[in-house]
Amino acid sequence: MKYGISVLFGIFGLIATEAALAFDALPDQPPIPADNPMSAAKVALGKQLFFDPRLSVNGTVSCNSCHNVMSSGTDNRSVSVGVGGQKGGRSAPTVWNAAFLTAQFWDGRAATLEDQAKGPILNPIEMGMPNEQAVIDRLSKIPGYVAQFDEVFGGKLSYDNVAKAIAAYERTLLTPNSAFDRYMKGDKEALSSAAERGMKTVRDVGCTACHTGPDFAGPKMPMGQGFYQKFPTFAGTEYEKKYRLADDLGRYTVTKSDGDRNMWRVPSWRNVALTAPYFHNGSVATLDEAVRVMAKTQLDKNLSDRQVKDIVAFLNSLTGEFPEQTLPRLPDYANGSVVETD
Amino acid sequence: MKYGISVLFGIFGLIATEAALAFDALPDQPPIPADNPMSAAKVALGKQLFFDPRLSVNGTVSCNSCHNVMSSGTDNRSVSVGVGGQKGGRSAPTVWNAAFLTAQFWDGRAATLEDQAKGPILNPIEMGMPNEQAVIDRLSKIPGYVAQFDEVFGGKLSYDNVAKAIAAYERTLLTPNSAFDRYMKGDKEALSSAAERGMKTVRDVGCTACHTGPDFAGPKMPMGQGFYQKFPTFAGTEYEKKYRLADDLGRYTVTKSDGDRNMWRVPSWRNVALTAPYFHNGSVATLDEAVRVMAKTQLDKNLSDRQVKDIVAFLNSLTGEFPEQTLPRLPDYANGSVVETD
Repeated sequence: MKYGISVLFGIFGLIATEAALAFDALPDQPPIPADNPMSAAKVALGKQLFFDPRLSVNGTVSCNSCHNVMSSGTDNRSVSVGVGGQKGGRSAPTVWNAAFLTAQFWDGRAATLEDQAKGPILNPIEMGMPNEQAVIDRLSKIPGYVAQFDEVFGGKLSYDNVAKAIAAYERTLLTPNSAFDRYMKGDKEALSSAAERGMKTVRDVGCTACHTGPDFAGPKMPMGQGFYQKFPTFAGTEYEKKYRLADDLGRYTVTKSDGDRNMWRVPSWRNVALTAPYFHNGSVATLDEAVRVMAKTQLDKNLSDRQVKDIVAFLNSLTGEFPEQTLPRLPDYANGSVVETD
Repeated sequence: MKYGISVLFGIFGLIATEAALAFDALPDQPPIPADNPMSAAKVALGKQLFFDPRLSVNGTVSCNSCHNVMSSGTDNRSVSVGVGGQKGGRSAPTVWNAAFLTAQFWDGRAATLEDQAKGPILNPIEMGMPNEQAVIDRLSKIPGYVAQFDEVFGGKLSYDNVAKAIAAYERTLLTPNSAFDRYMKGDKEALSSAAERGMKTVRDVGCTACHTGPDFAGPKMPMGQGFYQKFPTFAGTEYEKKYRLADDLGRYTVTKSDGDRNMWRVPSWRNVALTAPYFHNGSVATLDEAVRVMAKTQLDKNLSDRQVKDIVAFLNSLTGEFPEQTLPRLPDYANGSVVETD
């Protein structure tokens, strides 16, 4: 009888687990803000802008340079390289499924994709445009863009509308139908046994205290409100030293509030297998090491090799399907160049 | 009677002109080398490689970075920017219709697209891979590439085959159906009257001594043999000084033969309106100035503003139609990064 109850609890436990985890398949659509409705023409314009290196001062860097949608939505570098070979301070997060996040950038300093898109274009070490007006002036020289802003935004070629178009395109960058999603929708063969074990391990170990929800980036929050955690939570580990994990003060650099020291937006696990190197400074080269680091610095746990392997298998099951897209055709500018050519 | 004959000659002259110019519509297909036949799978592989920044040492530069097929096939810069923000010595020629050229690079140092493709990947200031083996080693880590080389080249992931795949893709980069091509095929409304005048002007002025053939890059030559001209031909002009036109010794840097000093492969006029800035050093910002410079330095002629305007109108009629393409999906590498991440 005792065993019977134990088995029964075991089964209930398992059933309860999937619900309690708040694991969920990726929704078909991300939230769409009321002031930036989607349209095919807007998405097409946003895609052109996303791929257009003329949004950088010298024509060498586009949004796609660091957020490569032909692959992981990142550049697989520790930190990105902007105009003139300058290096940024943090690793480029993936643009895939970023539409589900309720705050953007590692430190959550942008509330929406629209806000986010405005940053790198004007950042002197990223795309290096001197100011918003310079962006507008340049795009206004390109007849195709003028016509498209006319169609999509009633002629208003403003910096806000540049960002709106880019954000609209980014809301189409979703990767549904991962092995995990197929599993959640009933295909119990979709996960390998290692991945299935890993799915339990992340709960048992405690990863899912933060990595919950359909994008594994935390509980559902209102748009604009990030879900932050301290990283490292357990200070002074060897990992912290080796990978300089505490050097960047994270959200504190935005708010200057002591409570925000080393606080970071919890990143998504979606496609995490493809976005090495890892963490805000891209200091950790491989996913298995990233798993070890997180267990130690966030949960004070040393994982066995088997646990790490299973978790990595589970994380690999979160790699989705990347939609086929057309290559954008960037509007022509004839008889001269609009970028700084030197 | 004298006038009658003159008029008659005038008419015959005009008719003879179009034939004598050897102007021709762009052929449907470029030459295909016997040892690199086209196939859909090879073109798809070549396209992935063309767009893949993992062919550069630090993952920041792809073939497409400087030869942007989303636009003019160039970067619209004087000289390109390679890994680490390093600048090259010459302006990136367009990849569009390069398949029709019988020699590649400004100095013709590569006989074929295959030969050309091997250069920039290993050039320390372009893509910066240390050697051929490093390219093979890196691509061999990426399961999708291994499978595709298996399919396309019977498993041989060699540097030669990387180049063959890229060249096969480049042979699909053709821009048919320009206004000029439609005109040559019988649509006499396709050219504006300015462009029609410009078509006559380039003959009258003498530009077509070199810029003949369907790609306006010279008479038909055997593959591997370039058609070269001295630039500047008339030495010592103000333009030469202002734009440093004679500083680079051109083909001499390849052959070290005195006869090759300042000799250059005659570039195509196809899509030239979109490839500013102009010449081997990208020193001339606009097409109208480039036309003036060429008339003066090559033909010792000062053009009127009207002549320049007409020629520019004609050159604009050589902008073709850019085929719609799918965005390539670069094969995944999971759980780590294959590029130098620092």
